[in-house]
Amino acid sequence: MAGNTIGILYRLTTFGESHGKAVGGIIDGCPAGIDLDFEFIQRELDRRKPGQSAITTQRKEQDKVEFLSGIFEGKTTGAPIGFVIWNSDHRSKDYDNLRKVYRPSHADYTYYQKYGIREHSGGGRSSARITIPRVVAGAVAKLIINKLGIEIAAFTSQVGHIKLEQDYTQLDLSNTESNAIRCPDNETANRMISLVESIKKQDDTVGGIITGVIKNAPIGLGEPEFDKFHAELGKNMLNINAVKGFQIGSGFDAALLKGSSHNDLFIVDNEKVKTKTNFSGGVQGGITNGMDIVFKVAFKPVATILKPQKTIDTELNELEINPKGRHDPCVLPRAVPIVESMAAMTVLDFYLRNLAIKL
Amino acid sequence: MAGNTIGILYRLTTFGESHGKAVGGIIDGCPAGIDLDFEFIQRELDRRKPGQSAITTQRKEQDKVEFLSGIFEGKTTGAPIGFVIWNSDHRSKDYDNLRKVYRPSHADYTYYQKYGIREHSGGGRSSARITIPRVVAGAVAKLIINKLGIEIAAFTSQVGHIKLEQDYTQLDLSNTESNAIRCPDNETANRMISLVESIKKQDDTVGGIITGVIKNAPIGLGEPEFDKFHAELGKNMLNINAVKGFQIGSGFDAALLKGSSHNDLFIVDNEKVKTKTNFSGGVQGGITNGMDIVFKVAFKPVATILKPQKTIDTELNELEINPKGRHDPCVLPRAVPIVESMAAMTVLDFYLRNLAIKL
Amino acid sequence: MAGNTIGILYRLTTFGESHGKAVGGIIDGCPAGIDLDFEFIQRELDRRKPGQSAITTQRKEQDKVEFLSGIFEGKTTGAPIGFVIWNSDHRSKDYDNLRKVYRPSHADYTYYQKYGIREHSGGGRSSARITIPRVVAGAVAKLIINKLGIEIAAFTSQVGHIKLEQDYTQLDLSNTESNAIRCPDNETANRMISLVESIKKQDDTVGGIITGVIKNAPIGLGEPEFDKFHAELGKNMLNINAVKGFQIGSGFDAALLKGSSHNDLFIVDNEKVKTKTNFSGGVQGGITNGMDIVFKVAFKPVATILKPQKTIDTELNELEINPKGRHDPCVLPRAVPIVESMAAMTVLDFYLRNLAIKL
Amino acid sequence: MAGNTIGILYRLTTFGESHGKAVGGIIDGCPAGIDLDFEFIQRELDRRKPGQSAITTQRKEQDKVEFLSGIFEGKTTGAPIGFVIWNSDHRSKDYDNLRKVYRPSHADYTYYQKYGIREHSGGGRSSARITIPRVVAGAVAKLIINKLGIEIAAFTSQVGHIKLEQDYTQLDLSNTESNAIRCPDNETANRMISLVESIKKQDDTVGGIITGVIKNAPIGLGEPEFDKFHAELGKNMLNINAVKGFQIGSGFDAALLKGSSHNDLFIVDNEKVKTKTNFSGGVQGGITNGMDIVFKVAFKPVATILKPQKTIDTELNELEINPKGRHDPCVLPRAVPIVESMAAMTVLDFYLRNLAIKL
Repeated sequence: MAGNTIGILYRLTTFGESHGKAVGGIIDGCPAGIDLDFEFIQRELDRRKPGQSAITTQRKEQDKVEFLSGIFEGKTTGAPIGFVIWNSDHRSKDYDNLRKVYRPSHADYTYYQKYGIREHSGGGRSSARITIPRVVAGAVAKLIINKLGIEIAAFTSQVGHIKLEQDYTQLDLSNTESNAIRCPDNETANRMISLVESIKKQDDTVGGIITGVIKNAPIGLGEPEFDKFHAELGKNMLNINAVKGFQIGSGFDAALLKGSSHNDLFIVDNEKVKTKTNFSGGVQGGITNGMDIVFKVAFKPVATILKPQKTIDTELNELEINPKGRHDPCVLPRAVPIVESMAAMTVLDFYLRNLAIKL
Repeated sequence: MAGNTIGILYRLTTFGESHGKAVGGIIDGCPAGIDLDFEFIQRELDRRKPGQSAITTQRKEQDKVEFLSGIFEGKTTGAPIGFVIWNSDHRSKDYDNLRKVYRPSHADYTYYQKYGIREHSGGGRSSARITIPRVVAGAVAKLIINKLGIEIAAFTSQVGHIKLEQDYTQLDLSNTESNAIRCPDNETANRMISLVESIKKQDDTVGGIITGVIKNAPIGLGEPEFDKFHAELGKNMLNINAVKGFQIGSGFDAALLKGSSHNDLFIVDNEKVKTKTNFSGGVQGGITNGMDIVFKVAFKPVATILKPQKTIDTELNELEINPKGRHDPCVLPRAVPIVESMAAMTVLDFYLRNLAIKL
Repeated sequence: MAGNTIGILYRLTTFGESHGKAVGGIIDGCPAGIDLDFEFIQRELDRRKPGQSAITTQRKEQDKVEFLSGIFEGKTTGAPIGFVIWNSDHRSKDYDNLRKVYRPSHADYTYYQKYGIREHSGGGRSSARITIPRVVAGAVAKLIINKLGIEIAAFTSQVGHIKLEQDYTQLDLSNTESNAIRCPDNETANRMISLVESIKKQDDTVGGIITGVIKNAPIGLGEPEFDKFHAELGKNMLNINAVKGFQIGSGFDAALLKGSSHNDLFIVDNEKVKTKTNFSGGVQGGITNGMDIVFKVAFKPVATILKPQKTIDTELNELEINPKGRHDPCVLPRAVPIVESMAAMTVLDFYLRNLAIKL
Repeated sequence: MAGNTIGILYRLTTFGESHGKAVGGIIDGCPAGIDLDFEFIQRELDRRKPGQSAITTQRKEQDKVEFLSGIFEGKTTGAPIGFVIWNSDHRSKDYDNLRKVYRPSHADYTYYQKYGIREHSGGGRSSARITIPRVVAGAVAKLIINKLGIEIAAFTSQVGHIKLEQDYTQLDLSNTESNAIRCPDNETANRMISLVESIKKQDDTVGGIITGVIKNAPIGLGEPEFDKFHAELGKNMLNINAVKGFQIGSGFDAALLKGSSHNDLFIVDNEKVKTKTNFSGGVQGGITNGMDIVFKVAFKPVATILKPQKTIDTELNELEINPKGRHDPCVLPRAVPIVESMAAMTVLDFYLRNLAIKL
């Protein structure tokens, strides 16, 4: 229970550090007989990988996944799927001077205090690089739920003060991949990209918000007491590096509303039950209701900035750090596929759990 | 894995419906030899119970907890602690007309779709009444962590558009219990109470925000990959009825900030490591860093309003409902002890998990 | 993870001590919409209860189960099923003199050492009385799997040196309930009963073996690496008080055999695959193969004997104990329904888990 | 919950098939700061590897473990330890003719029925080769518990009808490694080896029994209701390929005994509490009592024999198989380190769980 496993029936356990030999994982509980589209899985990894655009870190990694087990003639066998992604461009030397330093708002201090020992290079286990296995398992989950008709789309909806103003229903979400910031509205995307470029020139970083939408999820996903659909989804989002907040449907704006405005009235549309509004965000009483599941995830600015900062070391001496190197000025575009992956695993896991509810 | 259990080492499993015989639970993994202060536990239940003030529902329940096992001469024995709270004022007849109705923004529809059967009286398992066992287990957890020096305080920081403007560090949080809305600033509390009274007169309901603060938590709580401290805390908060959002530290405002402003610089104060600011909210890399853990929880307005609303029934007929009865115009004051309880269980569970990290 | 929960999808968590107010439990994950036959459940409890025959303890307990939740109009709702069985005939005073005594081969010493505190009356949590909730949850599981056509039968196959010589296939297992020792062959049963009576007169106790047979289990139950069907079944049997051994199919006799004799050859019988022999005991590679699942469970003699015995107390003084009271000279007949209950829960849990293997 | 994970706090998740690229696993929850003795770990693997003696299979595998993460400068970091063992001598072609065949008493039939698809080469996931990762994780666990003074020794105590007659207390268990069958008495070992050689010449296989002894385990390990020490130990043993039975202490012989003979009387020896006899096998009420933990594990004869056998294929045609190749005539000697590994993981996991019992 050291926290490196996600899921109940569709489970991912991961390993790896930023500058170790490899990152990887084991997918356990993947249903048998699933055709794996390896190109799709690799494409998903490519959406996360460094160096994909001018506004992402230039660390050079192929991020090619090598599957080691659980697959026979292209299909899953029901056995655990072991996989590795080898680290290639790990310049541990870049980090020698950081061996004893607690970088501000990084996990250096807390890891050292918790474990009494720390792999310092590149953040070790706390690096965003450890999210790679999630994208692998998320891509496999997507393949399965897509076949069930469920679709997941995430996109950047805010960078710094620049917000996407349109509602997602007014936008073509397939447009998200057409720009470097992964915002479905090109005009807003351009403003966001300009902001990131300007922040980058300042050797600084910036935060933002990613919106996620899950369409066509079956009614009934989620366990109503301690594993509510949105609670598990929220946990999985909050487990993404740099995330500081999660909300579903009306979210924090719900505080402002009256019940008479916030209640989603049921209507019958073409013999299907829907709600007139969707302040619930597709979840009522912790269970999906068939409406779009809509949620937002808040990201803080990346902690590594290329400006000098005061800090301390393990012996509590004060010092100044001035990192060089290859870093993301804004984590949002690379986090979009991670958000989608976590959502896909969440949906699939609840889907499988739901099979045992009624006989 | 039907979701009625919370925690890994300190575990609570609950049962019960709003209008059944009883609600209750089993606490498993409570350390042995703990002195139980039964008056404290009951006081915590009293903070949650209906009818405690003019702005809460007038349902009459004593909410007395009866312990059935796991305690010997006032101390925990390490055996599971079974307990029940008998329902007394359950007027199931009040709900006969709702047997086939899907009330807007309630869990009626989703439960019925998920299970094919539904205990409709008072919301059945989806009632806020099921949070009682959480307060029992939370109170026991509080007794343990208080002894370790850890303190938990939650308070109402927003109702509708009325916000508590002061930072929690400027306030005496022990003042929270001095008013009906549980806001530590009496002047703001009065304005919030007036708002709730006015909303109540309109037969309507209103949402709000509760802020939680955990002081003196040890450094090192939280498992860094999929069980980050704030992720588990967030999940547990999102599992409270009516919650739509959770954030820690800077939360959604993090989106607006640059890294150079958001980074919490380390300082040494009296030989202890602290940070100058606390945008991290006491958690870095998913692990507590010794600073105050600060989080916010957003509540939607209660779905039961006493105005007529259009809706449908299980046969998809349209109809109008116009509930009578005893309902909360604003769930916030009674949710404060629930937020604290969930936080206390979260902290204790991570504390126990942490004992196995280093030998 | 204090070990008071069994099962993954069909879960039972229990509480209670021998001389506390009640024993009870929560069944979580019971599929929704199941008709509960309350008379059947009570009959199963009656098979376990004390005082049912001349060769069982004369403690007087009604052992009536009271359900508190999770049931609506006679059907399960998918919500957790809370239940209690009130203790009535608890003569704690009988145990005052044992407060500081470590009785031989009881759990007094180990509990005290583990927890530093001990509810001593009647063995507290280590009493066989804590198996009552298992029979409740086992009876519910039986109702479900019986509908699926699966049948479970256990019977006493050995008491002391008296063995049932016939193979179970030659016997009418429904005859098991016709005698006090629960052996399906009346002649052997009589000899076993005589032995128990004679042992009882000696103020002594005796061990034995229970055989279990599961018929018509679907092919495919069991998870092949660390949750093999027979491994989980074995664990659940070894968790019954007084059990010292478990085997499936050929069991310990397998040691004596060659592969050429032990291999179960496949045959096709009426278009169904069977095996000529069943040394495998219905499980191959950890997965059920459709043949009868056959296993044996070894019970030690009850530790409480009515003869004087030397022992020590918590201060390590030597002393002699000479228990009076109401005890079982042989636990076997009352253990038969417990063995069946544990088997029923095991089968149902694997059945539910199997629903997610192929989509 | 597809069963590829063992343990609660010290957890191993494994992957891999007999003839895939690799087998491997992830150890999660290994305490931080442990010095890893890599030579020791490899020596443990060498005790399990094929080709180590004339009476084991001649498949040629180096079985070198490659660690990928979780280790920094020779010490564990608290991060998950990923590792792989590459398969080298996999002659999948040897198995082409078995693609559609159900070999008797193998897992071919049950896997195919359960999953609808099967990696047939070398038994795929059901191969004994999948036990390699257990030896890695078991060796790491041994390193930790050895430091705590706990020692684990297993040895072959029966092969076919040849039994080791002496009690383990009369033998030097360090002698176990001095012969190919791993029996601590050389004279018995020679007779066992002769038997295996003769069986091998007959193209047949033979079963046997391994005895395990755990010395100096702390008092208090084991959770008394559903996770009794010997129940979890038994489960873990029953999860070893080819195991058909498990017993602790008196085991199946307990059936023959009276309480007055079987009860282990407490004595005080040098201010330490001991028992005069040890029929309990070191566990009372599911909790270790400080005496030696003694258990037996029954193995069936290996299913692959080199004689012709009748069987059927996936289309239910009858056919005859006559396997060639490299197989173990008796699995016992190579299973000894596996038994020890499973025991080591069990002990360590309960040790870690026990840290949270009292504060």
